Amino acid sequence: MTFVQIVVLAGGVGGARFLSGVRATAPDARITAVVNTGDDVTMHGLRICPDLDTVMYTLGGGIDPERGWGRMGESWTVKEELAAYGAEPTWFGLGDRDLATHLVRTRMLDAGYPLSQVTAALAERWKPGVELLPMSDQRVETHVVVTEPGSGRQQAIHFQEWWVRHRAALDASAFVQVGADSASPAPGVAEAFAAADAVLLAPSNPVVSIGTILGVPGLREALLATPGRVVGVSPIVSGEVVRGMADRCLPVVGVEVSAEGVGRHYGARSAGGLLDGWLVAPGDGADVPGVDVREVPLLMSSPAATAALARAALDAADV
Amino acid sequence: MTFVQIVVLAGGVGGARFLSGVRATAPDARITAVVNTGDDVTMHGLRICPDLDTVMYTLGGGIDPERGWGRMGESWTVKEELAAYGAEPTWFGLGDRDLATHLVRTRMLDAGYPLSQVTAALAERWKPGVELLPMSDQRVETHVVVTEPGSGRQQAIHFQEWWVRHRAALDASAFVQVGADSASPAPGVAEAFAAADAVLLAPSNPVVSIGTILGVPGLREALLATPGRVVGVSPIVSGEVVRGMADRCLPVVGVEVSAEGVGRHYGARSAGGLLDGWLVAPGDGADVPGVDVREVPLLMSSPAATAALARAALDAADV
Repeated sequence: MTFVQIVVLAGGVGGARFLSGVRATAPDARITAVVNTGDDVTMHGLRICPDLDTVMYTLGGGIDPERGWGRMGESWTVKEELAAYGAEPTWFGLGDRDLATHLVRTRMLDAGYPLSQVTAALAERWKPGVELLPMSDQRVETHVVVTEPGSGRQQAIHFQEWWVRHRAALDASAFVQVGADSASPAPGVAEAFAAADAVLLAPSNPVVSIGTILGVPGLREALLATPGRVVGVSPIVSGEVVRGMADRCLPVVGVEVSAEGVGRHYGARSAGGLLDGWLVAPGDGADVPGVDVREVPLLMSSPAATAALARAALDAADV
Repeated sequence: MTFVQIVVLAGGVGGARFLSGVRATAPDARITAVVNTGDDVTMHGLRICPDLDTVMYTLGGGIDPERGWGRMGESWTVKEELAAYGAEPTWFGLGDRDLATHLVRTRMLDAGYPLSQVTAALAERWKPGVELLPMSDQRVETHVVVTEPGSGRQQAIHFQEWWVRHRAALDASAFVQVGADSASPAPGVAEAFAAADAVLLAPSNPVVSIGTILGVPGLREALLATPGRVVGVSPIVSGEVVRGMADRCLPVVGVEVSAEGVGRHYGARSAGGLLDGWLVAPGDGADVPGVDVREVPLLMSSPAATAALARAALDAADV
């Protein structure tokens, strides 16, 4: 079939690459990216949306291809100067080019524009070729409940502090979505699901990316009301994460670090879960009752491989 | 005499250089710089204090010595990126290194700290060797009443727009200190005057730097209550400005562009004006009734020449 409206739930690097594959393989479809904003953080007075920016830069040709995040040809002058003032935090990778995005965003947010409109304004420069939507216009920030190594005291720290500063080395006991109670899906999200021929879950972190998106009140229900089929892509290959630190997150929510574990965690749509289809790596043959599990190459090692993966996901949505 | 407390009224580049001379020639004195903040402006959500920063960078060794403003080894990445977003204004020289200063300042101001405390915090890094005070903690912004070339319509624009964007080429009919009505001298200003052995007016713009400082309600009165002598340095040599565009400002307030004109504009303290002493360039022999006018080399062309000028100013205060 010819897809008219495709929705992709995406986190950062993996989601961005997957989206580039969807765009390449379905150039005539309207593609809506619903992007995790649980990683968003305010630093040095700047509102930073790491996943939105990674998707925007990747699809707009501005990404640093080696790091996978941040801007190509980036410099770090402002960061060094802030450190010279002793301005905390110093552990966050705030690049000069990237910073201009945060300045524009912060100014627009301060002026009262919602994040979805800010994102659209920024995308006018980058022309990502997809509709870029934050999961919500309200602040929903992921905090991580950790145990302090010395005191044994439990405290909640911002996801970025856990992820970037501590590189997820502190044992986490829970993830909390601060602000989720009063959040709702951003304008356009429910409409996109309602019009979708296919909803794809990118191979992003199932807990702190896809899970956070699904945690926005009303979003999961809107997704499940889609007339399209819902197909997920496993971020786990041979029991290991392809990228990122999902292996540090999945056990926290009691999910086995395997394609089968994540597939069962998402669950079959026919049984109250999410999935109609589930793509796993060759040899990972997962048993997820009620779900059309397919083995396809998952590594997005080249534009062609990435497009082939996206095509396989659309094929699984095409019945 | 040995000076214990010297106060210098200063604008940007000329004021900063003059202060470095005072510091060099009176290393044991407590030196307080009362700096013009009428040029301050908010751009891209950042609070920018050009004169405070010029003084701080100059005395702290961070200034670009050729431009006279901004940071040595500056880069302009963020500015270029902002322009790529179409974010206005694009005409302001916002350097990457400089920007970190504005980020720290803006964050502190947003947190409720007054500008004087923010300035002290920034100075902890730069260690200027003088007490750096804004003229006021309240916003007092210089606006310029100009006539639009085409329509002939009058409008008020921010000083920076007139100065930097239009390079003072638009005819001005007045300067307005927006916010002055509810402003008062910053903490420490009146105390410094009250303890001063000498108050020096740097060779800064008499209208939009020194004049703006003196326009803060109560500041002129505090200055005139000083037990020290008040000595000014002419910014005009042989009827021409040494630097800047005072020749575009003085006629607006009806003052002749000459050392005598500016001296008479400031006026003799004995006659309700400001000055006990007035330094003019050799050959500029100004007639300013009631004022001790001295001819000394005014060009701050080297650290030695600058220190000699400061010494001459202190000599004129030492009677």
